[in-house]
Amino acid sequence: MRTSIATVCLSGTLEEKMHACANAGFDGIEIFEQDLLVSPHSPEEIRDLAARLGLSLDLYQPFRDFEGVPEELLAENLYRAEAKFRLMRSLGMDLMLLCSNVGTATIDDDELAAAQLRRLGDLAARYGIRIAYEALAWGTFVNDFEHAMRIVDLADHPNIGTCLDSFHILSRGWNPAGIEKIPAEKIFFVQLADAPQLSMDILSWSRHYRVFPGEGAWELDKFMGHLVRSGYNGPVSLEIFNDVFRQADEERTAVDAMRSLIWLEERTSVHLLETDGPDARYPMQLATLPQVAEPTGFNFAEVKAENTEHVQQLLSQLGFTFRGRHRTKPVQLWTQGQARIIINEQQARGLEPTIAALAFDVEDPLVAASRALQLKATAVPRQSQANEAVLQAVKAPDSTEIFLCEATPDGTAAWTDEFATDGAKRSGQDLITHIDHVNLAQPWQHFDESVLFYESTLSLAPRPSTEVPSPVGLVRSQVMRTEDGNVRLALNIAPLVMEQPGPSAESAYPQHIAFACTDLIALARNAVASGLEFLKIPANYYADLQARFRLAPELLATLQELNLLYDRDETGEFLHFYTATVGSVFFEVVERRSSYDGYGAPNAPVRLSAQYLLSKHG
Amino acid sequence: MRTSIATVCLSGTLEEKMHACANAGFDGIEIFEQDLLVSPHSPEEIRDLAARLGLSLDLYQPFRDFEGVPEELLAENLYRAEAKFRLMRSLGMDLMLLCSNVGTATIDDDELAAAQLRRLGDLAARYGIRIAYEALAWGTFVNDFEHAMRIVDLADHPNIGTCLDSFHILSRGWNPAGIEKIPAEKIFFVQLADAPQLSMDILSWSRHYRVFPGEGAWELDKFMGHLVRSGYNGPVSLEIFNDVFRQADEERTAVDAMRSLIWLEERTSVHLLETDGPDARYPMQLATLPQVAEPTGFNFAEVKAENTEHVQQLLSQLGFTFRGRHRTKPVQLWTQGQARIIINEQQARGLEPTIAALAFDVEDPLVAASRALQLKATAVPRQSQANEAVLQAVKAPDSTEIFLCEATPDGTAAWTDEFATDGAKRSGQDLITHIDHVNLAQPWQHFDESVLFYESTLSLAPRPSTEVPSPVGLVRSQVMRTEDGNVRLALNIAPLVMEQPGPSAESAYPQHIAFACTDLIALARNAVASGLEFLKIPANYYADLQARFRLAPELLATLQELNLLYDRDETGEFLHFYTATVGSVFFEVVERRSSYDGYGAPNAPVRLSAQYLLSKHG
Repeated sequence: MRTSIATVCLSGTLEEKMHACANAGFDGIEIFEQDLLVSPHSPEEIRDLAARLGLSLDLYQPFRDFEGVPEELLAENLYRAEAKFRLMRSLGMDLMLLCSNVGTATIDDDELAAAQLRRLGDLAARYGIRIAYEALAWGTFVNDFEHAMRIVDLADHPNIGTCLDSFHILSRGWNPAGIEKIPAEKIFFVQLADAPQLSMDILSWSRHYRVFPGEGAWELDKFMGHLVRSGYNGPVSLEIFNDVFRQADEERTAVDAMRSLIWLEERTSVHLLETDGPDARYPMQLATLPQVAEPTGFNFAEVKAENTEHVQQLLSQLGFTFRGRHRTKPVQLWTQGQARIIINEQQARGLEPTIAALAFDVEDPLVAASRALQLKATAVPRQSQANEAVLQAVKAPDSTEIFLCEATPDGTAAWTDEFATDGAKRSGQDLITHIDHVNLAQPWQHFDESVLFYESTLSLAPRPSTEVPSPVGLVRSQVMRTEDGNVRLALNIAPLVMEQPGPSAESAYPQHIAFACTDLIALARNAVASGLEFLKIPANYYADLQARFRLAPELLATLQELNLLYDRDETGEFLHFYTATVGSVFFEVVERRSSYDGYGAPNAPVRLSAQYLLSKHG
Repeated sequence: MRTSIATVCLSGTLEEKMHACANAGFDGIEIFEQDLLVSPHSPEEIRDLAARLGLSLDLYQPFRDFEGVPEELLAENLYRAEAKFRLMRSLGMDLMLLCSNVGTATIDDDELAAAQLRRLGDLAARYGIRIAYEALAWGTFVNDFEHAMRIVDLADHPNIGTCLDSFHILSRGWNPAGIEKIPAEKIFFVQLADAPQLSMDILSWSRHYRVFPGEGAWELDKFMGHLVRSGYNGPVSLEIFNDVFRQADEERTAVDAMRSLIWLEERTSVHLLETDGPDARYPMQLATLPQVAEPTGFNFAEVKAENTEHVQQLLSQLGFTFRGRHRTKPVQLWTQGQARIIINEQQARGLEPTIAALAFDVEDPLVAASRALQLKATAVPRQSQANEAVLQAVKAPDSTEIFLCEATPDGTAAWTDEFATDGAKRSGQDLITHIDHVNLAQPWQHFDESVLFYESTLSLAPRPSTEVPSPVGLVRSQVMRTEDGNVRLALNIAPLVMEQPGPSAESAYPQHIAFACTDLIALARNAVASGLEFLKIPANYYADLQARFRLAPELLATLQELNLLYDRDETGEFLHFYTATVGSVFFEVVERRSSYDGYGAPNAPVRLSAQYLLSKHG
């Protein structure tokens, strides 16, 4: 599949955009006119730069408000078009996008529109240029791709074809199956965009909220299936108008974009296999990726800091066992049940405690790492001594290192042998069984990228996102998880603390590791006895709990005494507590009763507020 | 008019919110339950704090999902309610908001709902509490204020009344005239919100996009008119769910909120005078403000910096005359026609050039200043020597100082006498006639506040806002102007440069003063001759200009030679150019031909891109 992307998707100058597209591995680009107009480089210089970068210049866009107009306006429009054809010749380009008229169309007559397109086609032919006519979802008379195609048919000109854009088709609810009926040679270009399912006017939705395939709500694999069956074999291009992407670093956005296309290509391939069987053949060749099953659990989590004493203390107070130091590095292992925490003081000068790495149990780490790398994850170089396990690792968009480890049937981790057990001391009985979930803060301008990363590389499925009020704004929370719930990752965007523009969202918002336990009350009592700093929960919370759930007075008293939080729904009960925060890390311990499957969402504002008070007033 | 505000409008803890409300001058507050739940303070402590701050606790909210349910659920709901009544007693509160059921209602029967409300009324009466029943716009069975009122009528209980909320009424398009038919004693509470006219689902619109009265699209003065005519005389309260306000400094938001109510009170008074005449009397007393006409022009603009040499040079190259130094301060005056620029090096240690003050010609400066101060503007203390004019000044939300000056018939400014004319030298003929417009960057979290500030204090009217693409994101631009166009102010929100969280929007985005001139080409030639640094416009721009406007070749060549930009519409032509940026300031010179009334919006991306390139690559 040939990949392309419109320059309007990215921030920066045209030059910066082109470098980013080339670096991310795109085959070609669409030149968005505005980007060229504001560029100090001549069309010839842009053409040469594209050649040097190995980028084809696939589409010049947009040309607007051409057809369905009176004759005198048509003459002006042909004048405008010819100026652009000359420009395209300087750029060495041969395909122009023509959007259905939204501004000046006054005549609703397909025959007339077709005749006018034919005249444009004649003019274009003189410059060796073809015109891809596209129905904008808000076109005055033409807003449906099949209508645009009827006009193209009527025009019956070799230089006039159509451009299909998933946004304009799916936002209007048109059935994309009709694509299969279009002759492949008349599909001159294809643009893809995904979008969240918003109920707003289509123009605003289109201009501000498009996202890359896989980051929205649409089944683009099915859309692509229709396209592949039509016999189309040209570029598949991204055209994403998104306020956030316009502000974010263009190199990262381009990688995110490329990842979305690679993943879509695979999903399309899987979709076609399912629907058309293994023997079906199409002109468009679709690449696939190494297949991985969803991870079966957390293998470990790593907390890194120059000084980890306070973190060690918290773990000890939670009943974790110190299992020893690494043979060659300033690294410790603490475990309880299958919960393993690596404490790392290596290369951590000046660093406050932070969640530096997460490790997942996967069937085949090499295959999983290969998949992630093909999906444009950054490799993490490992320095291992002889005889040490070489762990596969990649970097997530938020810089967390993601380790891919072999799951062993007995639940042990092979690499733990590397830790000397001399200093090991056991703190008590193992009430904690495993890591229940991990909550990571995400910079808001890369949130969609993170969701797509974890979904495409690790096969974690996004659940509907929620919003939680905090004293400094709403926190958006997106749970990514495996079907069986053995791996749960919550990605949170923290609000920017606006009046103090210094700290970035990442550093201002703490992250945490939540441990599952079998008896929270017993564990909390042990922790109290060993002096754990609990996050203090206000008395008003318990009064409200009582009003909502009519809890037994003894249970209520115990919850309040131990600073435990409580939730209940039709599936079961949830008890949990939080520790104090050290650096940007805190811990949570949770007990799920019956089949409670949530995260105590009603309690999140209580936690956020208590942490806000602590951070502000100590 | 008694003013109140819901704590959910503001960021911070309940205590911080209460302080902010008291400081802004609110009479009372609504306690939003969530804010109390997460507070470490007991209900009694909150009651005492309110008393100390002189705030009445007007409404406890929300109580949800009560009516239209089967009997067993009703029992639970009464249990929940009684717990809250006990809590309210501790708070010393006597009014609770009940939202129409959106979660658990299964029985669509007004008689049943009324009977259940009656039972709630009986229970509430035992605690001395009244219930204000409100139709949520998305209520399952009750989503219309007149429907809610019919149920209240059926309930026929002294402790059951209604709460009217402008959002829930106007978002659904219900006619607020029906409010006049409601007996005043049955309106227990009134909540006001404004909103931009968005086409999105009502729940998202309500939860994220509400704004303070005057900051949205609704005619709340007419809404208030109906309310006043109903005979209502209770608190008028703000309940604004807004993602940005939730993040912004609560003290500023509270002032913005109070300003919106003061202004609405005045507008309501004016509206009632117009519709009902001067003799109409109502129970609710409405305060008015000192009346001011719109300003008649810019009196001066002030640029401040430690070193203003470069700014002086630019002004000189633009043909400005140095008119002398201030008698007592390190301040200079430069003028051309009626354009006056104050160059200020006073108390500017380390400061790069910035637009520090704008002065407007008004009929009566004392009255205008009094109005601004009553609208919660901050006074600017002036240090004037004997015999110096005392200029009235207040601070705008973006910290720009706003001077209110007396317009003189001959267009001179009295205070210019304070400048010694010894050093004055004349640079050429006056092609510049006056300040055409000023463009100020606004921090995005205070944008609505700024618009309301300039509208309410200076009577500048907001025009529809536009969005301009820049290499680092979309720039939202909001023109505020007088009807006659003599004062034009463009407020821009610059996108945050996300990858470098250091600089705030204000400092990263330059501001400018645009001068009107009678012959831009002549002025540009003079400026070239005197060595002015123009902002360089790329050649590609001129090729596009030619394609769009078919300009005469000589004109096009002149435009390109002089780095002039061009726009045309059915009203006329617009020629303009920009200077280099010094600190955060640059200048523009514009020539309006015929009755062109815009700002060359199609050229703004060209300017932004050229400035981006300069800032990045020099």
